[in-house]
Amino acid sequence: MSRCAVKKVEAIIKPFKLDEVKQALSEVGVAGLTATEVKGFGRQKGHTELYRGAEYVVDFLPKVKVEVVVADSLVGRVVEVIERAAKTGRIGDGKIFVLPVEEVIRIRTGERGEEAL
Amino acid sequence: MSRCAVKKVEAIIKPFKLDEVKQALSEVGVAGLTATEVKGFGRQKGHTELYRGAEYVVDFLPKVKVEVVVADSLVGRVVEVIERAAKTGRIGDGKIFVLPVEEVIRIRTGERGEEAL
Amino acid sequence: MSRCAVKKVEAIIKPFKLDEVKQALSEVGVAGLTATEVKGFGRQKGHTELYRGAEYVVDFLPKVKVEVVVADSLVGRVVEVIERAAKTGRIGDGKIFVLPVEEVIRIRTGERGEEAL
Ligand SMILES: Nc1ncnc2c1ncn2[C@@H]1O[C@H](COP(=O)(O)OP(=O)(O)OP(=O)(O)O)[C@@H](O)[C@H]1O
Ligand SMILES: Nc1ncnc2c1ncn2[C@@H]1O[C@H](COP(=O)(O)OP(=O)(O)OP(=O)(O)O)[C@@H](O)[C@H]1O
Ligand SMILES: Nc1ncnc2c1ncn2[C@@H]1O[C@H](COP(=O)(O)OP(=O)(O)OP(=O)(O)O)[C@@H](O)[C@H]1O
Ligand SMILES: [Mg+2]
Ligand SMILES: [Mg+2]
Ligand SMILES: [Mg+2]
Repeated sequence: MSRCAVKKVEAIIKPFKLDEVKQALSEVGVAGLTATEVKGFGRQKGHTELYRGAEYVVDFLPKVKVEVVVADSLVGRVVEVIERAAKTGRIGDGKIFVLPVEEVIRIRTGERGEEAL
Repeated sequence: MSRCAVKKVEAIIKPFKLDEVKQALSEVGVAGLTATEVKGFGRQKGHTELYRGAEYVVDFLPKVKVEVVVADSLVGRVVEVIERAAKTGRIGDGKIFVLPVEEVIRIRTGERGEEAL
Repeated sequence: MSRCAVKKVEAIIKPFKLDEVKQALSEVGVAGLTATEVKGFGRQKGHTELYRGAEYVVDFLPKVKVEVVVADSLVGRVVEVIERAAKTGRIGDGKIFVLPVEEVIRIRTGERGEEAL
């Protein structure tokens, strides 16, 4: 299996920002993305609550995880575009993580590597 | 923490293919997998729609993400098996991504590395 | 884009353990986490069932995926804390995976690397 010059950009954003982020990504030529509904907990301490005799923090908030696998050469631009589109300037705007990817395959055609993107 | 020879194979597939993919994986000895409902957007341009005065692309489709962490030596076989089981030959069959993993732990036993798989 | 000394710890746990895991993580100073509802399949063979003329394994169980991106120096402690909090000693307690991360960005501030955590 050949290594390829590809990364995964993973962004946890506010749900109402999904369409804006997706639109912005397609303007820089991103061809595919995957979105997942998640629950998030950031730096702000939540309030605690008594539940079955123990105290729990109950501050999970709905977020959307956006995953985009792109060529190395596009990563900088993709991160910028997500930052701009997802930012409101208020707490909880989200995080972006960049992870290495070693191989990509398009199932329909069997293409590998950057051609599979 | 010792590095281990393990990868994560992540496949985004058509939802009705999940059972077939899972069955095929268990035939090559894959012992565990995780499935997540996601929404996906591939290369095909969607149609746009007016929503609250702005235009959005509305072509998110339901997909399933399958994650399988396996020994390096199994990765090639796992990718092949997913390709074959998930393929219909029509647009939107999905993508497979291979990512590096540095450590695996089985929570019940505390086992580490390949033994934890 | 500068590399940074950061990892993603991904744990698949029993859903009723989420609050305990989250609480334990916040006690060791973990500032953020993301939780996703997933379906899991571990080593135990499920029973099979006839469905549309074919036999399928029907043993998917609801699990929660917890993702925590932390500084390298915290990874060992984070893994220990998740192990302890998620463990019941019974089958299906879950798995922990550690993955490399190359960059982190806090969207609100534009901070990069460990400061963005
Ligand atoms: N270290 C982390 N690991 C995994 N997920 C995280 C982490 N930090 C944040 N997240 C995810 O990102 C979401 C948004 O985080 P958030 O924007 O609140 O980060 P923050 O560091 O608290 O920044 P801010 O001060 O702007 O609120 C969280 O709800 C959570 O889902
Ligand atoms: N670059 C990508 N990054 C992240 N997820 C992706 C990417 N490309 C595709 N996906 C995910 O995979 C799903 C299926 O993609 P799809 O099979 O349509 O890929 P494609 O490249 O458009 O191939 P095809 O031409 O066969 O349709 C998408 O709905 C999306 O969830
Ligand atoms: N190799 C794997 N790849 C991806 N996900 C996995 C893998 N193994 C387990 N999982 C996920 O973790 C969940 C819990 O796994 P589980 O604890 O049953 O592992 P196990 O190896 O069977 O251990 P045990 O013998 O204690 O049951 C599974 O339901 C699945 O979601
Ligand atoms: Mg926050
Ligand atoms: Mg497509
Ligand atoms: Mg099991």
